[in-house]
Amino acid sequence: MKDHLRIGILGLGVVGSGTIQVLAAQRAKIKEQTGMNVSIVKALIRPAEDKKQFADEHGIELTSELADIVEDATLDVVIELIGKVHPAKEFIAQALKNGKHVVTANKDLIAQHGVELVEIAKENNVSLFYEASVAGGIPILRTLTTNYLADEITNIRGIVNGTTNYMLTKMLENGTSYEEALAQAQALGFAESDPTNDVDGIDAAYKMVILTQFAYGMDVALSDLEIQGIRGLSDKDVLQAQKFGYEIKLIGESVKADETISVSVGPALVPKTHPLASIKNEFNGVFINSTGIDQSMFYGPGAGSLPTATSVISDVAAIAKNISLGIDAPQFNEYRRPLQLTAPEANYAKYYFAVTTSADFTADALTALLANEKVQINELAQEIGETNRFMVITESINRLQLAAVEAAIAKQGTLERRMRVMEA
Amino acid sequence: MKDHLRIGILGLGVVGSGTIQVLAAQRAKIKEQTGMNVSIVKALIRPAEDKKQFADEHGIELTSELADIVEDATLDVVIELIGKVHPAKEFIAQALKNGKHVVTANKDLIAQHGVELVEIAKENNVSLFYEASVAGGIPILRTLTTNYLADEITNIRGIVNGTTNYMLTKMLENGTSYEEALAQAQALGFAESDPTNDVDGIDAAYKMVILTQFAYGMDVALSDLEIQGIRGLSDKDVLQAQKFGYEIKLIGESVKADETISVSVGPALVPKTHPLASIKNEFNGVFINSTGIDQSMFYGPGAGSLPTATSVISDVAAIAKNISLGIDAPQFNEYRRPLQLTAPEANYAKYYFAVTTSADFTADALTALLANEKVQINELAQEIGETNRFMVITESINRLQLAAVEAAIAKQGTLERRMRVMEA
Ligand SMILES: NC(=O)c1ccc[n+]([C@@H]2O[C@H](COP(=O)([O-])OP(=O)(O)OC[C@H]3O[C@@H](n4cnc5c(N)ncnc54)[C@H](OP(=O)(O)O)[C@@H]3O)[C@@H](O)[C@H]2O)c1
Ligand SMILES: NC(=O)c1ccc[n+]([C@@H]2O[C@H](COP(=O)([O-])OP(=O)(O)OC[C@H]3O[C@@H](n4cnc5c(N)ncnc54)[C@H](OP(=O)(O)O)[C@@H]3O)[C@@H](O)[C@H]2O)c1
Repeated sequence: MKDHLRIGILGLGVVGSGTIQVLAAQRAKIKEQTGMNVSIVKALIRPAEDKKQFADEHGIELTSELADIVEDATLDVVIELIGKVHPAKEFIAQALKNGKHVVTANKDLIAQHGVELVEIAKENNVSLFYEASVAGGIPILRTLTTNYLADEITNIRGIVNGTTNYMLTKMLENGTSYEEALAQAQALGFAESDPTNDVDGIDAAYKMVILTQFAYGMDVALSDLEIQGIRGLSDKDVLQAQKFGYEIKLIGESVKADETISVSVGPALVPKTHPLASIKNEFNGVFINSTGIDQSMFYGPGAGSLPTATSVISDVAAIAKNISLGIDAPQFNEYRRPLQLTAPEANYAKYYFAVTTSADFTADALTALLANEKVQINELAQEIGETNRFMVITESINRLQLAAVEAAIAKQGTLERRMRVMEA
Repeated sequence: MKDHLRIGILGLGVVGSGTIQVLAAQRAKIKEQTGMNVSIVKALIRPAEDKKQFADEHGIELTSELADIVEDATLDVVIELIGKVHPAKEFIAQALKNGKHVVTANKDLIAQHGVELVEIAKENNVSLFYEASVAGGIPILRTLTTNYLADEITNIRGIVNGTTNYMLTKMLENGTSYEEALAQAQALGFAESDPTNDVDGIDAAYKMVILTQFAYGMDVALSDLEIQGIRGLSDKDVLQAQKFGYEIKLIGESVKADETISVSVGPALVPKTHPLASIKNEFNGVFINSTGIDQSMFYGPGAGSLPTATSVISDVAAIAKNISLGIDAPQFNEYRRPLQLTAPEANYAKYYFAVTTSADFTADALTALLANEKVQINELAQEIGETNRFMVITESINRLQLAAVEAAIAKQGTLERRMRVMEA
């Protein structure tokens, strides 16, 4: 019986070095629980990186040649933690083709090329696991495949980007401006020096692609999502949302209606009483509506060295367990349904609009303008100045009505911000 | 290859009938995901119960004879949902001995006799699963065995009783009195006509026994726990806690320090900013501190027909999957450590005391009384009347100091309430 799992790791950055540490701390427990000795024996680093002392401490051989790892017949598992799409994709594909199970935390890659990589994994009878790719330390993906197997999810919503949630928390609680909040997030190491993927909602979109796959078995492409970021969000809107009884959060939402789904990412107004409103600072949360469990939420750190590494090692432990039980390599999620996107006319939501107009345009005129599109306003606030700024919340409307409202508004003023409004 | 799982169910009450419904709704998905046709074919009911129509609709044979189920060689699984310890324990033991896997939601039984039943399950090479026994619809137990396998839990705290959380929410938000809140919970069907197990913390204690087993591998007996309920909680304390910046919640806590653990249940002061404070009404939440993931929380319905039934059916699906993968029946949780309880002198917490004294006893005198036991007061409020009522929060003290303080207070007045204070 095989009782030793030998691993090569690609990348010794934030998560890579955390992974070495978590395994060192948990090796005995993993052995006890899975019957397998698990060791990371080789690591791929950049030629210029100085990791010798760290590697020696942990008994790891260093290399800068991929072949030293993916062509080493004594290795059973490759952990990919170099990030980005290329060359991570090619590295993973090679590892899979050489019969190695792969664990990765790479959401960019899995969201865009996961289907293709899973196919390669299947062909080679190995597993490809990626628990850490969504919401870092939160055990959400595997849970969706086990405890939600006997449930039907109708809506899965997440605060899945820590950087933007940190920024929005500061804007709300301290009245910090968008620019200041971003600078703070960068200073604390949450936001990269180029924060595009975070603030423009791309990072959250990657995660929603993966969550959608697990929740509904449907493969959406990034281009199927409506994606808005929080770039340049005005503190006026944060404040006004609060007066209306809401907090603004960057929400990824994947909703099912009549066997069709719609997936979006954008700043949204979350009722203060909703559990997602309690997710503060850099934390993440995933909230699920389903026909059985009804309402549930998973809360935890969306990133960070040790939390993310713990998810990586939980995947490794799952592989160890499968091998010691003699199970043929399973894939992470075998649930598959043909993709059907919700038609615009069936896609309903309430919206918040911030509109600036000339000073002579009145609240009554705005109300009439929307009424003309058969859209009622539920809440209205107005800031009077050299120009008028209206902030309204509409009743629930579909995407065709939304487009008509936006076109009508554009003729009378400037649409500064449009956000979804979550129901309580 | 076996591809049909035949099930007998004991009890068609709230959860039992929900279980039939959830399986009916999810049968196709379960078949797809596990490769097994799963059907509930027989149900044990009371002779007097009229379930004929419901049973006919679902193609279920009714019986009032246990032997019809546990001795039916064509059944693979027995689901026990009659509740209470006896005769559920004997029924389950018989089913296990007859080679049937068992799924149950029975926390009373598992907390008190789980170890013994797991032994019987092992001897007979069948599984005993009980996801629904803790926090109803929240997928917490299985997650502890997978995603926390590679982590070290240091503290697991739960709001695991919906009735008392509902009552405390009403007392806090609406100023409802304890008696009124209990009457409301009973009217809504959360609390039984005899609410003893809920309000005295017994139900929460059962769940903490099970959570402790999963978190630390240690088997605690109910008698190892310190258990306090919320019976007769004064709205004065709810209000004062709020002024100090806390909400009162019935918290089950299982803490590890230096390989020893201490487990307790009682009303506790939870900082308003703590995620557990956001668990309202009848919802449950389990908050985990660990060395890897750091902080995480699971939120959802602690009870209810469909949520609880969904957990029951997720256990059934796990059994179906194990059988179709040809895995020898695993037990739910194989983590085992010898029990070591934390010594009183190493068991630290902050405490809230409500003390009534004669009108001539001053705040200074109380401060001096505690100082005499080398205990400092961090917060103090006083209500002056015919008698004085002092409400204080101490610094962190151990159980020996706690006993000394309580003895000293008893000489000068009446200790009306003592509660733990959670750190932020
Ligand atoms: N950090 C988190 O909290 C977190 C959370 C969830 C998921 N993730 C994911 O985890 C992965 C790793 O993130 P990270 O934060 O650990 O990134 P990181 O700190 O930048 O680590 C990546 C490491 O890999 C090295 N590397 C890149 N390309 C390489 C190559 N071709 N050969 C050898 N080494 C190479 C990098 O070196 P250079 O710097 O020289 O390129 C760097 O040392 C990413 O997919 C990320 O999205 C991270
Ligand atoms: N309800 C929840 O939300 C919830 C949540 C989590 C866990 N649970 C657990 O789930 C279990 C079932 O709870 P429940 O709420 O479904 O209780 P319930 O509604 O009282 O259902 C139990 C049913 O079993 C019947 N029964 C009892 N003893 C029997 C016997 N010897 N033979 C045949 N039938 C018998 C009862 O009939 P009689 O009424 O005539 O005795 C009743 O119809 C309990 O262990 C409970 O702790 C419940």
